[in-house]
Amino acid sequence: MDSSPHSNKNIKLVLTYDGTSFFGWQETKEGRSIEGTLSQALEQILQEKVNLQAASRTDRGVHALGQVVNFITSKQFTLNELKKSLNSLLPNDLRVISLNETDPLFHPTTSAIGKEYHYHLTYGEIQLPHLRLYAWHVPGQLNFEKMREGASYLLGTHDFSAFCNMRKNLNYTDKVRRIEELEILSMEEGKLKVMIRGNHFMYKMVRNIVGTLVYVGLGKLQPQDLLKILHSKCRPCAGVTAPAHGLHLHQIFYK
Amino acid sequence: MDSSPHSNKNIKLVLTYDGTSFFGWQETKEGRSIEGTLSQALEQILQEKVNLQAASRTDRGVHALGQVVNFITSKQFTLNELKKSLNSLLPNDLRVISLNETDPLFHPTTSAIGKEYHYHLTYGEIQLPHLRLYAWHVPGQLNFEKMREGASYLLGTHDFSAFCNMRKNLNYTDKVRRIEELEILSMEEGKLKVMIRGNHFMYKMVRNIVGTLVYVGLGKLQPQDLLKILHSKCRPCAGVTAPAHGLHLHQIFYK
Repeated sequence: MDSSPHSNKNIKLVLTYDGTSFFGWQETKEGRSIEGTLSQALEQILQEKVNLQAASRTDRGVHALGQVVNFITSKQFTLNELKKSLNSLLPNDLRVISLNETDPLFHPTTSAIGKEYHYHLTYGEIQLPHLRLYAWHVPGQLNFEKMREGASYLLGTHDFSAFCNMRKNLNYTDKVRRIEELEILSMEEGKLKVMIRGNHFMYKMVRNIVGTLVYVGLGKLQPQDLLKILHSKCRPCAGVTAPAHGLHLHQIFYK
Repeated sequence: MDSSPHSNKNIKLVLTYDGTSFFGWQETKEGRSIEGTLSQALEQILQEKVNLQAASRTDRGVHALGQVVNFITSKQFTLNELKKSLNSLLPNDLRVISLNETDPLFHPTTSAIGKEYHYHLTYGEIQLPHLRLYAWHVPGQLNFEKMREGASYLLGTHDFSAFCNMRKNLNYTDKVRRIEELEILSMEEGKLKVMIRGNHFMYKMVRNIVGTLVYVGLGKLQPQDLLKILHSKCRPCAGVTAPAHGLHLHQIFYK
């Protein structure tokens, strides 16, 4: 890799954040964003304009354990020192886990071969206060076995139109996606985790899948209905969109 | 139990709360307290002055999964309806798990035969943002085996003077206490939980024990030093007081 003083370097960062007090990834005039907060800190240190790209443009309230972003710079610095300076400058709800120079052709979105999300749920009569900002509380009981059966119909390659929300400036050439793993994990003390791994998720797809599986868990839908919903390609036929604050971007996979 | 209209009833509540935005259990002019918030809601519903007693007067920032409190009332109400009214009136960082009429002689502190606390820690280079309000972050690595060996010296009945902080209006007749269980539980992803169960804890005793065990984990103290510290009865000989926000009152035990 060319490391002459003025050559461009492609810097890859892995971030973790508590999405509670952010207006999502994308810079906005409404309030603090992850993109805005991180680029401001980088620009203060590097004294140049920084253009960040993220693997996942997380919505307002969504958390991340392993968000991947990059930027191009010709500035000279020690990687470890830049990481330390960033972490001392950033607020404590946003941390840089790692910072490396990477392949010039690396792009966090287009180079990604898969993503893993964890969706956290609590259930029962009482919402646990210390989890209220990190898990969706479903009052009542959930039938995990039925949720698991429902989830099994979504595994593999399908047209996920029924689980994709519309958004301005968002045109998918097709809505065929592959889900490689979809597990319903029962945790201690009224907690449930939905773990989902796939090749490329569409807008609100994870949250729509979770909302539909919760309908199955509550008995509002039968497990086999998932197959009908998939075939219908009809968004209103599926369940509710699960709220943002239960969603945790867990990991992005690269070759 | 006498249930005539004007007889006094002893009402026992089990509470869970996120201590982050409270100034602790005790009512104070500094800001919102758990005692103040709960008594205000009860007084609004029952239309009488309510005097609450708690099993553990948790400090500012300490969380609870199973705090036990009581009050005496002669008012008439359905237990389940009072619980529902309270939970709809209370802020969502404070929830009533259960509400029952109990023995007239029951007192949350003096009737207790034991308490269990969980102390949550994270360790490593990066503090996980979504746990920053619920776990103490220790930068660096912890030697769990040495912490376990250190903990073993504290099990059983000892004079815990070295682990007890002074406070105005607090006079212990003696400082002999029994620790029945003290476990160092390694969790996933850089997390550690110290589980401690005993007959009666003194002021800041759990946090002083955790702070001292962390010193052992970091190599600042040797496991055998715990025995010397116990025998010294000298508070400054032990480790630092672990911060309040990692402490979770887990359960109170009664006969």
